[in-house]
Amino acid sequence: MIGSRLIDVSELVDRAREGQPRAVGRLISLVEDAHPQLREVAAALAPFTGRARVIGLTGPPGVGKSTSTSALLTSLRADGKKVGVLAVDPSSPFSGGALLGDRIRMREHATDPGVFIRSMATRGHLGGLSWAAPQALRVLDAAGFDVVLVETVGVGQSEVDVVKLADTTVVLLAPGMGDGIQAAKAGVLEIADVFVVNKADRDGAEATVRDLKTMVAMSRKGITGPLWRQPILSTVASTMDGIADVVGALAAHHDWLVAHDRLVERRHRRARAEVEAIALETVRARIDGPGDEALNHLAAQVAAGSLDPYTAADHLVAGPPWWG
Amino acid sequence: MIGSRLIDVSELVDRAREGQPRAVGRLISLVEDAHPQLREVAAALAPFTGRARVIGLTGPPGVGKSTSTSALLTSLRADGKKVGVLAVDPSSPFSGGALLGDRIRMREHATDPGVFIRSMATRGHLGGLSWAAPQALRVLDAAGFDVVLVETVGVGQSEVDVVKLADTTVVLLAPGMGDGIQAAKAGVLEIADVFVVNKADRDGAEATVRDLKTMVAMSRKGITGPLWRQPILSTVASTMDGIADVVGALAAHHDWLVAHDRLVERRHRRARAEVEAIALETVRARIDGPGDEALNHLAAQVAAGSLDPYTAADHLVAGPPWWG
Repeated sequence: MIGSRLIDVSELVDRAREGQPRAVGRLISLVEDAHPQLREVAAALAPFTGRARVIGLTGPPGVGKSTSTSALLTSLRADGKKVGVLAVDPSSPFSGGALLGDRIRMREHATDPGVFIRSMATRGHLGGLSWAAPQALRVLDAAGFDVVLVETVGVGQSEVDVVKLADTTVVLLAPGMGDGIQAAKAGVLEIADVFVVNKADRDGAEATVRDLKTMVAMSRKGITGPLWRQPILSTVASTMDGIADVVGALAAHHDWLVAHDRLVERRHRRARAEVEAIALETVRARIDGPGDEALNHLAAQVAAGSLDPYTAADHLVAGPPWWG
Repeated sequence: MIGSRLIDVSELVDRAREGQPRAVGRLISLVEDAHPQLREVAAALAPFTGRARVIGLTGPPGVGKSTSTSALLTSLRADGKKVGVLAVDPSSPFSGGALLGDRIRMREHATDPGVFIRSMATRGHLGGLSWAAPQALRVLDAAGFDVVLVETVGVGQSEVDVVKLADTTVVLLAPGMGDGIQAAKAGVLEIADVFVVNKADRDGAEATVRDLKTMVAMSRKGITGPLWRQPILSTVASTMDGIADVVGALAAHHDWLVAHDRLVERRHRRARAEVEAIALETVRARIDGPGDEALNHLAAQVAAGSLDPYTAADHLVAGPPWWG
């Protein structure tokens, strides 16, 4: 019976909102797997969303992102906040650390019902992260988590995506990455709301902070109007040193966003990116589904040089007979 | 006069095919910038494409990809091949090494008309690499380059994309990355046609080769039918040690693909990915262009929780009045 496989979505959402971790995990899985009832899930969640503060953490490999996430989690829990963590890894054949890190962190917080940690691997298709992570975020938001930390490895498209999701973006750096900072000045300045120099007990930490200060000062020149002054903080996440200051900076940035009507603006931007990603995913699913044969036919002509790929794409988008 | 700004595309293609580097560069720029005459360029190139052998090089940061690309370039040039290089960097705020490396390599080969090197930064939108790199490849193919090396940093979506482009994919590793290899076994095996352990004069090179051999042997168990046996080669790219063997392996893989009808299959797959990426880019451009106001309206409802993002996306894809 097909009927017996139907999930009672509203019951599942109710249980997630009551704080049952299994229900939360189940909902995220439904979202990740693009379950047939995904749209039903999204509709059931919508009225309960928009409450969680979303903090993005990004930075190059080796700066201690997982340790920093864990330290922030501990500190936010001590303040009584319910905290969700989404650790997003690009679908790299070369990455694979997330699951291990996850298990370790899971163990530490396993008995705490106020914490939910989930690793997400983006799928190997266009818009993987753009599409699934915001939906997982909606689950945690609707389930009543006060803060959601979205941790992503800072390489490639993923920091851009995390910024689209977050109310506040923390860029983590570590001593001895000065050259990288120089090369990437503009990019880092654009995405960071808070800079954290982790591993600040190591040689070169002061130089890194100084470089960042120079960069930030230069970027402020000539800008008028309300301006958030990106703090540059130092931490040793493994010993919790400096973590309270980061939590303070996150709260201050949140207040600033609210005071300057920027929170609404950021969330509008997030919703825009989300709707667009889903729309593109919908089109992609149509192409790979009903459009599959048409695409094969067109691709054969393109491979043979008898049709250019743009004309082929126009045929594909124009649609019939396969476009539903 | 608008007319005076029109580019004479067929003349430009003719000049590129005669081997004028400026014309090749200009065409790639038109493609990257999504110039209004892009479709005209694509149509003019199509009949001359399908001849170049496309070699993808990928691997984690620090394995010596640029040095290896440069060494392969030198070796292929010594065999009399015209060689194009596309160095693709994800649009990471944290990367930034490509331009410098490019300048150095450019200098070395600056006076050689049989070499064309180009760095491409993917744009910050969905499908950046999927969309622009294949078109740049078409330019080099039509311009008569015998081999095109596509070098990409092996993190995130980019290796998947490079595999979609390439006839043959080289995965570079270096000693001391054993843990990473273990964690990523499956992914690396799927994408590699040739393994190269670079920096083979360093400690641990033999262990890395041994680990790879074990992985490859295990992956072959139970597979029947024609099977390409992925060679595992050792190089010191900076001194050209072992590079001739890599060039030999690339030729052997090409012959194997042809003998087993797999070259046609791979190129069909490439054309499929390319047409799909352009189709999605076309839809994205419609959403961000004529659909912009509709998207803003829908995003506001989603941010307020009065509409779920899937229903919003359905409205967007359904289209009118903005959908052209």
